[in-house]
Parts: sequence; structure tokens; C-alpha cells
Amino acid sequence: MTTTKLSEYGEFGLIEHLTKDVLIKNKSTLKGIGDDCAILETSDLQTVITTDLLLEGIHFDLSYCPLKHLGYKAVIANLSDVYAMNATPEQITVSIGVSAKFTVEALELLYSGIKLACNKHNVDLVGGDTSASLTGLIISITAIGKVSADKVVKRDGAKINDLICVSGNLGAAYLGLQILEREKSIYTATGGAQPELSKYDYVLERQLKPEARKDIISELASLNIVPTAMIDISDGLSSELIHICSQSQVGCKIYEERIPIASETEEAAKEFDIEPLISVLNGGEDYELLFTIKISDYEKIQTLESISVIGNICSQEEGLSLVSKSGNFIELKAQGWKAL
Amino acid sequence: MTTTKLSEYGEFGLIEHLTKDVLIKNKSTLKGIGDDCAILETSDLQTVITTDLLLEGIHFDLSYCPLKHLGYKAVIANLSDVYAMNATPEQITVSIGVSAKFTVEALELLYSGIKLACNKHNVDLVGGDTSASLTGLIISITAIGKVSADKVVKRDGAKINDLICVSGNLGAAYLGLQILEREKSIYTATGGAQPELSKYDYVLERQLKPEARKDIISELASLNIVPTAMIDISDGLSSELIHICSQSQVGCKIYEERIPIASETEEAAKEFDIEPLISVLNGGEDYELLFTIKISDYEKIQTLESISVIGNICSQEEGLSLVSKSGNFIELKAQGWKAL
Repeated sequence: MTTTKLSEYGEFGLIEHLTKDVLIKNKSTLKGIGDDCAILETSDLQTVITTDLLLEGIHFDLSYCPLKHLGYKAVIANLSDVYAMNATPEQITVSIGVSAKFTVEALELLYSGIKLACNKHNVDLVGGDTSASLTGLIISITAIGKVSADKVVKRDGAKINDLICVSGNLGAAYLGLQILEREKSIYTATGGAQPELSKYDYVLERQLKPEARKDIISELASLNIVPTAMIDISDGLSSELIHICSQSQVGCKIYEERIPIASETEEAAKEFDIEPLISVLNGGEDYELLFTIKISDYEKIQTLESISVIGNICSQEEGLSLVSKSGNFIELKAQGWKAL
Repeated sequence: MTTTKLSEYGEFGLIEHLTKDVLIKNKSTLKGIGDDCAILETSDLQTVITTDLLLEGIHFDLSYCPLKHLGYKAVIANLSDVYAMNATPEQITVSIGVSAKFTVEALELLYSGIKLACNKHNVDLVGGDTSASLTGLIISITAIGKVSADKVVKRDGAKINDLICVSGNLGAAYLGLQILEREKSIYTATGGAQPELSKYDYVLERQLKPEARKDIISELASLNIVPTAMIDISDGLSSELIHICSQSQVGCKIYEERIPIASETEEAAKEFDIEPLISVLNGGEDYELLFTIKISDYEKIQTLESISVIGNICSQEEGLSLVSKSGNFIELKAQGWKAL
């Protein structure tokens, strides 16, 4: 494999090299990379904007996270925030800081993942910044999306009796991370034993190559449903429910038996002696959508496999609780949970 | 002085603490901090967007750059890019990565500079991300601005015979940096000798507390001038002229005698035995505006003290050159320059 030192390119040369095949896909992108700013056309839609900072050693570990996956996931994490506003992402900017240990080829891999996510979600890469770093890899992504004023969904609109819904299933990404961490220790301890990971494919993919739920946003639109509140699940169900309830000034009840957990997640959880529910409530990086809908919208979604109704909104005085399979009420906490 | 460990706040608590006094100033900001995304209203203007990544040890040295100044300058660097599109900045997002060596009070200082720049330029802080960092301080800022479609100025519109203009004066920030670097060495070598820096006030302020030239954009608008091309001078005049000429597919001639250099810059340059012109051409961080105008606009600007006409655009075949005071032609290079 060819290795090219970063020093063979200047800053501008490197940006140009990494982005030379970037094509503009959205007509709203009037000018992409190459000026002081990107230019986006006028619009009768509202603009939403979100940004994320990812640091090596804090948010990712390159010993088990391939660079292409990392690039993909870094974009997905931002697009997920845009979808969580019921908006359509159209542009991103990507800034990276890289230390001398990275080759040009390594950055090409990173950008191949970034571009793959952009292509899949029809998003234009319109700018960014590239810098030397003294230590490791730094990725800062900003995503911009559009939504009509009557369709934008914030966290503060949940009303008493609204139904609480989640897309897909929860807790898998956290178990995927546990497996990767365990295999890393084994690899280090044994001096390089290659693990047999195929039976964990599902949870590993949920950790390494998560998806942003564009399909759910499209499905809701086609059913003419505008959620009353929405958030993406990046920090665990508990923390996200608390955000919605506190901003909407309401409480909630969710039911353990209704929480969607994949059988692969349950099996992996068993192996680690972790309660799958803990992984759901306090794990993270599932990038599913958590949203509330009016009870009158229930019929429209009840047959959809991709959406589960897990509970309902109640008054703030009733608090935030999980009703266990045995009927106990457990108070939801941002980190950890305790029996009432 | 009180010192509060970052660990006393969680991620959300820290963001809330640092941004609790942020007020929304622009009616285009419908929703700021506190949801998955910020929301900006519909507009019949175009949107411009730019982003910068600043890393401790690469872009700044906290041993001589006060945190408040750093916050201010980090915002200014981005706003300068927005003005360079002839646009008005309206929103920024700020992401920071901080290691455990920083206290909450240190971050408050950083944010006081960020907020000062926002207030001065009527810009809303609408979002961001806060993360732990293994090493030092990381600042990633994205700025968004608005401009009407017929007023946006890119780098690619310079035409033969257009006049080349710069705002303010050049080269000061580079000399300011030289002084700070020298004083740091002396401080280290002598174990703490306090330098007498007051005679360098001007160049130090240009380095530590630069300004983005909002006033020039307003002045051009009031004179009904739309530059044909524009860029902000962050990397030295040479490099910025090359950007404009290469994107506009033209050449240029600039005249040494017309380049505005402050007397304080000349004095500091003498002390360091640096040719002031080198500081202008290859220094950086002046954050002045470099732009081209039609020759028919000359009368409108000729009496303005804040704008100097330094040369003119010629054909690409004629190349990019500096005409020295003695009449020699010197080819402009991105880094360094050589006699023809």
C-alpha cells in the first residue's frame, strides 16, 4: 500500500486532493468548497444547523474503528440531528486536525466514508478547514438542513396524552462497543489473537456503521404526521426522554415490555451480564428517533414495523417513569436509574 | 480567584453555564441553543457559511494569548470570512474540546471574548458542542451570514483593469507575533523577567485582538460599490492575491509604494531586521479585506483613508507581480518571493 506523507501537500493542496471528486447535488448549493464561504440559495424554507466535535481517544478509538467507518459515522451523527428536527439535510462542512502519524491515504479513507454518507443522504460537502494537530485526529462537522415552517419539530412540543414512539430498536450500539473494547484487551493481552466476531455482526454494525433515519422522516411525511416533539437517541433513551419532558414541561410513562430490543442485542447483553434495558436507557449512539405524536395519529402508525409506541406523555407532576414488566415504577435518570 | 473543576459540571451543565446569558439579537434566529439544531427563518437572501478549526499549540499559544482575546479572535476570524463575501454575519456555532487543566473560570474567560465579538458584530451564538479533550484546547467555529443574490462577492470575478484595493494596513499582526514569541523566550530564559511592551501596543493589538472589517462592507454598500472579487487577508497578501487571480484567471500588478504599512509596523520590523514588505506578503492574520473594483468606481473611493488602491488586474499571461520602489518586477509566490 502506498503511503504519502501529509507534508507532501500544503494545506490547500490537501483540501483540494481530498475533495477534488466532490460533486454538488443540491440546487440549493450555489457555491461549495473554494471561497471564503460556501453560498446557499434563498429559500422559503427554514434552515436548521447543528455541529459536532469528535476527538480521537475521547469519541473514537482507531485501533478498532476503521477510518472509513469513522468518516461515515461522523457525518451520520450530524444528519441524525437534522432529521430529528423533521428537516432534510442538504450541506455539511468538515474540518479536520491531523497529526503527522496520518498519511494521505489514511485521510482518503476517512473522506471516502464522509463522501459515502453524503451520497447516501444526498448532502453536499461545501467547505471546511484542514489543520495540523499535535495529537491525533480531530473531526468537526456542521450540518445544514431545510424544513418548512409548519413542519419543523423541536423538543418542547410534547403534550399530555401524546404517544411516545421510537424507530428501530435500541441498545445495540452500546453492546457493539463493549465487544470492541473486550476484543481490544484480548488482542493487547495475547499479542495479537484475531477474534471471531461474525456472530456479533449486527451489534458491531450498529456501533461502527450506524444509520440516520431518513426513512422514518419520509414515512411520517407520507402519512402526513408531524410529531409534536422529536430528538435523536445519541445518549441513551433515558437522557433523551428527559430532554423532551423537561423542555415540554411534561412527564412520561414508558413500558419495558414495549421497548424494541433486537435478539442479537439481548444475546450479546447476556454474554456481558448486562441487563439489555440498561444498554437501552444509558447506552448511546443508536441514532434512532424518539418522538411524540398526537393520539389521533395512532392508527396511521400502528402497523408500521419500523416504529414502536413505547408509552405516553403525562403531567410533569407524575414524573418520568419506566413501568417494568413486573409492574414496578422506576424513575428515569439521566445517568443510571433507581427504583422508586 | 475561584477555580472550579470542569468535572463539577456535566456536558449539558457546562454548555448551559457558559451560555446562560446569551441573548438572541437577530430576528432570523428562531431557535438558538437547546435543541438538536438551531433554526433560522426563511429568507429572500442567500446564506453563506464558513468554518475554522483552531488548535492549541498550532494556532495559538496560551502562554501569551489571553483566553478572552483568543475567544474574541476565533470569532473574528470567521466573521472576516463572512464579510469577505460582502455578507452580514448573523449566527455562529462554537464547539470546544477542553482538557482537565482548564477550569470553568478559564472557559468563562474564553466565552466572554466570544460573546464580546458576537455583541460587537450583532451575531447570535446558536449552538455548538462541548467535549473533553486529552490534550489542550480545541475551538471549532462555524459562522453563517446573509447577502442578497446581486451583492454576493466571490474570489472569481476580478477582470482585467480592475483596481486592487486593501483596507487598513498590512503586516502588523505578524510583527506582533514576533514580539510575543521573543518575549516568551526571554521570559523562559530569565525565569520570569517582565517585559516592557507598551511601545509595541499597536502591533500587539493587531495580533491579539484583530478586528473584522464590517465598517468597510458598510462603507462600500453606502457608496453603492459591489467589488468584483474579494477575500480576507488571513494568510498574507501574496497568498490571497494568488487565490483571487487564479480563480478569476487573471494576473495582477501591485506597487510596493502603495502598500499601506503602519509606522509602528515599520519600527518593529526594523528591530527584528525583517523587511516590512515580507511581513505584508507572507505574514498573516491581518484580517483586512483585499478586493477588486471596476475602474469606474475609483472616484467614489479615492478620498477614503481606510482603503488603499495598491495596483490593478492584468491578463493571466502577464503574471502576478509586485513592482518595487526601484521599479523592479518581483513575482508573487504563495510562500516567499523571488526576483524575476
